[in-house]
Amino acid sequence: MSSSSVFKLWTHARLATLAGDAKENPWGWVENGAMLSQGEHLLWAGDIADLDAEFRNGLAQEINLGGAVVTPGLIDCHTHLVYGGQRAAEFEQRLLGASYEEIARAGGGIRSSVAATRAASEHQLYAQAAHRVLNLLKEGVTTIEVKSGYGLSQASEAKMLRAARRLKGLGVDVRTSYLGAHALPPEFEGRQDAYVTALIEWMTPLHREGLIDAVDAFCEGIGFTPAQTRRVFEAAQALGLPVKLHAEQLSDQGGSQLAAEFKALSCDHLEYLSEAGVQAMAASGTVAVLLPGAYYFLRESKLPPVQALRDAGVPIAIATDHNPGTSPTLSLLLMLNMACTLFRLTPEEALRGVTVNAARALGLSDRGQLAAGQRADFCVWDVEHPNELAYYFGRNPLKRVVRGGVERT
Amino acid sequence: MSSSSVFKLWTHARLATLAGDAKENPWGWVENGAMLSQGEHLLWAGDIADLDAEFRNGLAQEINLGGAVVTPGLIDCHTHLVYGGQRAAEFEQRLLGASYEEIARAGGGIRSSVAATRAASEHQLYAQAAHRVLNLLKEGVTTIEVKSGYGLSQASEAKMLRAARRLKGLGVDVRTSYLGAHALPPEFEGRQDAYVTALIEWMTPLHREGLIDAVDAFCEGIGFTPAQTRRVFEAAQALGLPVKLHAEQLSDQGGSQLAAEFKALSCDHLEYLSEAGVQAMAASGTVAVLLPGAYYFLRESKLPPVQALRDAGVPIAIATDHNPGTSPTLSLLLMLNMACTLFRLTPEEALRGVTVNAARALGLSDRGQLAAGQRADFCVWDVEHPNELAYYFGRNPLKRVVRGGVERT
Ligand SMILES: [Zn+2]
Ligand SMILES: [Zn+2]
Repeated sequence: MSSSSVFKLWTHARLATLAGDAKENPWGWVENGAMLSQGEHLLWAGDIADLDAEFRNGLAQEINLGGAVVTPGLIDCHTHLVYGGQRAAEFEQRLLGASYEEIARAGGGIRSSVAATRAASEHQLYAQAAHRVLNLLKEGVTTIEVKSGYGLSQASEAKMLRAARRLKGLGVDVRTSYLGAHALPPEFEGRQDAYVTALIEWMTPLHREGLIDAVDAFCEGIGFTPAQTRRVFEAAQALGLPVKLHAEQLSDQGGSQLAAEFKALSCDHLEYLSEAGVQAMAASGTVAVLLPGAYYFLRESKLPPVQALRDAGVPIAIATDHNPGTSPTLSLLLMLNMACTLFRLTPEEALRGVTVNAARALGLSDRGQLAAGQRADFCVWDVEHPNELAYYFGRNPLKRVVRGGVERT
Repeated sequence: MSSSSVFKLWTHARLATLAGDAKENPWGWVENGAMLSQGEHLLWAGDIADLDAEFRNGLAQEINLGGAVVTPGLIDCHTHLVYGGQRAAEFEQRLLGASYEEIARAGGGIRSSVAATRAASEHQLYAQAAHRVLNLLKEGVTTIEVKSGYGLSQASEAKMLRAARRLKGLGVDVRTSYLGAHALPPEFEGRQDAYVTALIEWMTPLHREGLIDAVDAFCEGIGFTPAQTRRVFEAAQALGLPVKLHAEQLSDQGGSQLAAEFKALSCDHLEYLSEAGVQAMAASGTVAVLLPGAYYFLRESKLPPVQALRDAGVPIAIATDHNPGTSPTLSLLLMLNMACTLFRLTPEEALRGVTVNAARALGLSDRGQLAAGQRADFCVWDVEHPNELAYYFGRNPLKRVVRGGVERT
C-alpha cells in the first residue's frame, strides 16, 4: 500500500476547525472531534459520532490525540526571511544614541542588508534562512511566504528566490514573492524610473525559472510611487502573476485602491489605510495583512482601521514580517498576542489571521481550515482553549505538528 | 573525589562577564575567555592566557565551548508564578467588548485568581507553576523570585510559598517574597486596616517556617496606602526581613521614598517615579526593577524615567512580572527586547538587568557576573554578539546552560 492510500484517523481531538460561520459557531469548534486523512489531505473532519462506521472499524490507522486542542497548521504569509547578515549592531547603535543619518553614513540600514545579501552565496543565504525558519517551525508553522528584495539585481534576486525555494526541504511549504520594488539599489541612485524598468525586465526570466508565485512592491514616500507601482503590477498582470502590496504603512498613498484595481491578493501593513481603501479592498476581495511586530518595533502609534475592516468584511491576516531592520521576530505566536494587545483583534480573529485568512492572502484555498479537501496540516496544543494561543506571550505550547498527514519530529 | 572538589575548565568561550567598569569595557568582554569552576562556584574567569599553568596542564576536566558567547545565568527577579487557573477567557472577553466592571461582576479579575488559588492544593499549585517555570528554564533562567499574594489568608499564603519553594526541585534557585499586601480579600471588604493587621500577624509564623526571603507590598491608589505599607515594612524590619515594593506603577504615591527609608532591595514598575523618588533610591542603593511586559500588556503610555535613573546611578533590573492578569509572559529574553524597544535601554543595560542587577534586587551578591567567587551559573548562546539577545524578539538562541557547575539537560 503506498503512503498516499493510507487512511489515518486522528481521534480524541478538540477541534478549532475555523470552518463554517464564525458567528454561529466561534472557532468552528468541535468538542468531540476527529479527522480522517488520506495521504496529504483530509477526507473528513467533525464530531466522531458522525464518522462512517467503516472507518471506525479498523480500516484507518488510529492516532489518539489525548483530548488536546487542535488547530490548522500556522501560516506566516509575509516574511523577508532570506537575507545576508543581521542588524543587531545597528539596533544597539541607535539605542546608544546614533541618529538614522549617522547609521546610514556608516553603511547601515537596508543598504547593509543589500550589501550582505549580494556578497553571500546562494548556499549561505539558504543556511542562514534555514536557521531562522527552524524557529518558526518550532511553533507549528507549516507554510511560509518569503519575499525577495535585498538583492536588487537580477542575479541576486534570483539567488534569494532560489534560496527561498530550497527551504521546502525543511518540511514547510514555501511561497515566494518577487519584491524587486523594495528599495532603490545604490547603482540606480537618482534614476528610480530606470530601476523600475530594470526590475520589470528581470521579472520574465525569474518567472520562467519558476521562482515567482506573486509580485509585491513597497508603495510609500520612501519607496516607490503609485505610478511606478502600477508599472510593476501591469508587468505582473501580463505574465499572469498575482500581486500584493506593502501599502499605507507610513502614509496614505492610495496604494490599496491601486492594488484592488489589480485584484491584489493582499495589502499589507495598512496603518494609514483610508475608508476609500477599505471599500476598494472589500470590493476586490483583497486580504488585509496586519504586521504588529513592525508596528511594535518601530514604536508606531497610528493603528490600522481594524473596525472599518471588520465592518466592510475584509478578511484580516497577521504575519511576522520577519526582516532584519523593522521586525526581527521569529515567533508567529507572539504576533497573535501583539495583534490582540496592540490592534485589539479578538483571539479568534488572530488565529484566523494565521490560518484561513493567511492562506487566502497567499491565494491558497487548500489550507487554513480543518475540513474535507484541505491539506492535513495541523497543530496539537498543550492548552485548554485556543484563546490561550493569543493570551500568553513568549510561551510555546506546541505538542505535535502534522504536515501533509505526516507528523514532523 | 567528591563532586565539590572537581575542577572544571570551560574553554573557548567569548565571555560577557558583566564584571568591571562598563564604560572601560562594555559587557565586561573577554574575547579569548575561559572559566575555572570548582563545585558550585567559579574560582576564576578571564583570558585563557592569564590562567595558572597547573590548570592548563590537566588538573581540571576541560570542556570546550566552541567559541560561543557566554553570559551569566539569567535571573527573573519579579514574578507571581504560583497561582491557580489562568485568565485567558477574561482576556478574550475584554477584546470582545466586555468592560472591567462586567468582568468583575462575573467574578473575574484578581478575585478569580484568589478563588482558584484558595481552591487548589499545594501540589496543584506546584504542578501548574512547574509547567510555567519550565518555559523560563528553556531560555537559561537559573534563579527566580516568586511572590505570594493570591492566597490572602494565612493558610493559603503559606500554601503558595511552600509550592514556590518546591520549584527548586526543577533545577532553579528560588527566592520567595511575602506579598500579603497585594489585594484586599473579599472577607475584609471595607476593613483594609484590619486586613493589614492580619497579614502582619501571619508574617511571623510564615517567617518561622522559613518561607520568606523578603516582604513586598502593592502601594497604589487601588492597592495599599503609604501608611499601611509603612506598617508592613515596620513588621518586616522587626523580623530582620528585607523589603521591596510595587511602587509608582499607576500614580506617584511616594512609595519609593518610603521604601528607600527602609533600605528596600528594590522598587518595581516605577512608571510614575518622581525625581525625589529617584534621588531617594540612589541614596539607599535600591534597585529599580522595570517591568516592560506589564507596560506592554496594559498598553501604558507613561514611561519610567530611565535617563534620570541612569544619571543618578540607580541600578536597573528587568523582569517578566509573570502573572495571569497583567503580564502573562513566560519569556525573559522577550523582556530584553521590550526593555530596549519600549523603554530605550541599551542591549547591555538590558542584559545587566537580568543578571547582575537582578541579583542585587534579590539581595544576592554571589551571582549575576562571571567572576571568581560567583556561582558557576552561566548560559552558552548561539549568537555572534550578546546584543543579539535583545535585538531578536521571539527567538531562543540558548545552546547550553550550566547551574552550580553542572550542565542542565
Ligand atoms: Zn514586508
Ligand atoms: Zn508584580
